[in-house]
Amino acid sequence: MKIIREVEGASIKRSVDSGTEEQRKAVQDIISSVREKGNAALIDFTEKFDGVLIEETRVPEEEIADAFAEMDTEMIKVIQEAADNIRAFHEKQKQSSWFTTQPDGTMLGQKLTPLDSVGVYVPGGTAAYPSSVLMNVIPAKVAGVERITMVSPPGKDGKLSAGVLVAAKIAGVEEIHKVGGAQAVAALAYGTETISSVDKITGPGNIFVALAKREVFGDVDIDMIAGPSEIVVLADKGQHADEIAADLLSQAEHDALASAVLVTTCEDLAEHVSQEVERQLSTLPREDIARRSISDFGAIYVVDDLEQGVELVNQLAPEHLEILTADPFETMAGIRHAGAIFLGRFSSEPVGDYFAGPNHVLPTNGTARFSSPLNVDEFMKKSSIISYSEKALKENGDKIAKLARLEGLEAHARAVEIRFKKRD
Amino acid sequence: MKIIREVEGASIKRSVDSGTEEQRKAVQDIISSVREKGNAALIDFTEKFDGVLIEETRVPEEEIADAFAEMDTEMIKVIQEAADNIRAFHEKQKQSSWFTTQPDGTMLGQKLTPLDSVGVYVPGGTAAYPSSVLMNVIPAKVAGVERITMVSPPGKDGKLSAGVLVAAKIAGVEEIHKVGGAQAVAALAYGTETISSVDKITGPGNIFVALAKREVFGDVDIDMIAGPSEIVVLADKGQHADEIAADLLSQAEHDALASAVLVTTCEDLAEHVSQEVERQLSTLPREDIARRSISDFGAIYVVDDLEQGVELVNQLAPEHLEILTADPFETMAGIRHAGAIFLGRFSSEPVGDYFAGPNHVLPTNGTARFSSPLNVDEFMKKSSIISYSEKALKENGDKIAKLARLEGLEAHARAVEIRFKKRD
Repeated sequence: MKIIREVEGASIKRSVDSGTEEQRKAVQDIISSVREKGNAALIDFTEKFDGVLIEETRVPEEEIADAFAEMDTEMIKVIQEAADNIRAFHEKQKQSSWFTTQPDGTMLGQKLTPLDSVGVYVPGGTAAYPSSVLMNVIPAKVAGVERITMVSPPGKDGKLSAGVLVAAKIAGVEEIHKVGGAQAVAALAYGTETISSVDKITGPGNIFVALAKREVFGDVDIDMIAGPSEIVVLADKGQHADEIAADLLSQAEHDALASAVLVTTCEDLAEHVSQEVERQLSTLPREDIARRSISDFGAIYVVDDLEQGVELVNQLAPEHLEILTADPFETMAGIRHAGAIFLGRFSSEPVGDYFAGPNHVLPTNGTARFSSPLNVDEFMKKSSIISYSEKALKENGDKIAKLARLEGLEAHARAVEIRFKKRD
Repeated sequence: MKIIREVEGASIKRSVDSGTEEQRKAVQDIISSVREKGNAALIDFTEKFDGVLIEETRVPEEEIADAFAEMDTEMIKVIQEAADNIRAFHEKQKQSSWFTTQPDGTMLGQKLTPLDSVGVYVPGGTAAYPSSVLMNVIPAKVAGVERITMVSPPGKDGKLSAGVLVAAKIAGVEEIHKVGGAQAVAALAYGTETISSVDKITGPGNIFVALAKREVFGDVDIDMIAGPSEIVVLADKGQHADEIAADLLSQAEHDALASAVLVTTCEDLAEHVSQEVERQLSTLPREDIARRSISDFGAIYVVDDLEQGVELVNQLAPEHLEILTADPFETMAGIRHAGAIFLGRFSSEPVGDYFAGPNHVLPTNGTARFSSPLNVDEFMKKSSIISYSEKALKENGDKIAKLARLEGLEAHARAVEIRFKKRD
C-alpha cells in the first residue's frame, strides 16, 4: 500500500458514478413505460434485463417456505439473532411525541407519526445480501410503518435467493415482488395494478437504480444514494498489524472501487500493515477485487501525533472508522465526522455489518459531514402542534400583527385581529 | 370559492415549478463561473442580476448598526421576543448522544454532532422576511453549529433590508454576504476567496435558487425545496365563518400559486365562508394576488362527517392544518399527514408564522407524507458507536463469520477470526 507522509489537504480517493446522459435517458424511458403500462412493462423489462419471463411479480408464500426449507437451521437461527440485535438497537432510537404547556393555557408540541408505507430495494446476484434486508426493513418496522414492500430482481430461475427471502420474512416483510432495476423503483413510486405506491424508497442498487431513485425523489422520499464502501483505521503504536490488514481487506473485497485507509502515528506499523495486506491479499477468494481496491484507492497516512490523526479523520469523514489506540474512548471524543465508529480491537468492522445492532447503511463519499446512518427517525415524520389560548392571543396578538405588517402581509395581521375586533 | 361535494380522489390543486431546460443550463453556467472565478464572478453576477455594483460581498458591522438605528425599538423588542420563543421550542427538540452497556462489556451507542457549518439563503425584495431569518438560523444555533453564513441579494442601494439584518443579528449570525441567486448558492457550496464553503444550505428562494440547491446537493446537504404555501382548515358546525375566511386569505395573500382549502361537515358554513372570503378579499392590499390564489387553487369540500374529513386531510397532506372542531385534540389524533397543526380558534395560522415558537419552514406539495418541519435534528448528524468486548466477540465471532460467508465475503469472516486464531 502507498505510504504517505503529507496530510495537508488529504482526502479519501473516491470513485463516484453519477451516470451518463444515455443512462439517465434510459431510466426516464423505463419510468414512463411503467407509469403508462404498469405490470405489463414490469414483465417486459424483467424478461429483457433479467432474462427470465415471470407470470406475475409477487413472490408466493410457497417460495418463501421453500427458502426456509432450503437453508440450514443454524443459519436461520443466526439471522434471527442478528435481527433481534438490530431491533433492540433501533428501538432505542425511537423518539416520542411531546408537548409543553404554558401557564396561560397554551400548548405547543411535536407529534411523531410513522410513514404509511416504505419500499425496500434489494439488489440481485452476488449483491443479494440478507443483512441489507434486515438493516433496511427493521428500522421501518420499529418506526411503525404499516406497509413495507420489498422488490428484488429474480435470478435466471425466476426466483429470489433463499437468504434474501428468509431475512425478509424474519424482518417482517409481508409483500415481496421479484422485479428489479429502474422499473422496480418506478413501480414503488407510482404504483401498478398489483404494487401500491409507497412514500419512501430505501436500499442500495446499481447505477440504474440510483438514477431512478434520483428521478422519483420529490414524488416520494428516498434514502441516500450510496457510493462504494470506505474504511479508515486510526491506530497508534502497539496495535496488531495483521488485524488491521484484515479489516482493511474486509472493505476492499466489497468492490474494486472501495477505499481502505490507515492513519497511524507509528512508522513501523505503517510498514507492517503494508506487508500484511500484501501477504493476506494473495490468500483471498476475492483477491482480484480487493487488490484493485487497495492499489487504486488504498493509502496509509503517517501522522505526527494522534491529534493530527483525529483531524485527518475528520477531514476524510469516512463511512466506517476503527479506533485502535491506547484509549479509544478518549480518541473518539475528538471525532466529528464518521458514519460508524468501532472502538478497540474486538470491534472489527464486520461486527457492525452483520450482528451488533447498529445499522450498516452509512453515509459514504464524505457525506458523514452532514448525514447519518439509516435510522428510525428516517421512517417517521414530525408535525408541529400549536394550541394557543385566548389569553395568549390577547396578550400577543398585537405583536404578531406588528410582525406581519413589517413583512407587508396585511391579511396575516387581520386574521389575528378579527378574533377580537369584530365583536367589540 | 368553489364548493365541492365529491371527495373521492381529491387532492390539493398545486403548482410546482421545476424549471426549464434553459434555466437549468443557466444555473449550471453560473455555478461553474463561481467555482472558477470566485468573488469576481459574484460581483459580476450581482451587477448583472441585482443591478448594483458592490465592492465586496461582506456586510460591514456599521450597516448592521444602521439597521438597528433605523428600526423602531418596539419592533426590535418584538423580534427579540419571537426569537426567544423560537429558541425555547427548538431547544426541546435537541437530542442527546446515548449509549447502552451489555453484561459482557459491550457498549453500543449513538453520538450526536452538530454540522460544522451552515449557509442560510434569504430572498431579497418583498420576500425578505425577518421571520424566515429567525426560523432558519435559530435551529442551527440550537443544534450547536459553529459557523452560520447568511447570504441575501442586495437592493438597488447595495444594502440588505433593515429587518433582515436586525433578525440576523438577533438570531446570532456572525457573517452576512450581500449576494443572492444561484451565484450565492454556488459560493456557499464551493467557497470563494472570502466565503468559506458550508456543509448544508437552507432557506427559500426563487426558481434559480431552487435549481442551484438541487445542483449542489450531494456535495453539500440542502433542506427541502419549498413550493407555494398551503392551508387546509377542517371545521365542523358552529365555527366562525369570518375567522376561517381570514385564515384562508392569510395564505392566499402569500402567492397567486398558494392553496387555501376548507374541509367542513357543515353545508351552511361552506356557504358563509365562501361569502366571507369574497367580502374580505375586496378590502385587502394584496387583493390581486389573493384573488388569483383563491380562484385558481382554493376549494371548499363538504364532507359527510368528521371521520371522512380527517381522511380527506390525510389525503391532502397539507403544509398547514387548522382544526376548528368541538374537540380539536380528539380530531388531531386521527391526523397522520400535516406539517403544522393549529388547534382551536385562537391558534390562527399567523401565530405560527411569527411568534409561537415552532418552525414555519414546513413540508409543502404533499410531502408532509414523509417530511417534517425544519428542526434541530436537521442540523445534527449521528455516528453509531460500537465497542465490542473480547467476551462478546468470542461468543459471537462464529455467527458473524457464518453470516459473512453466506454473503460470499470471506475477508469479512477472516477479519473476525484473526483476532483469536493466529495466536492459538
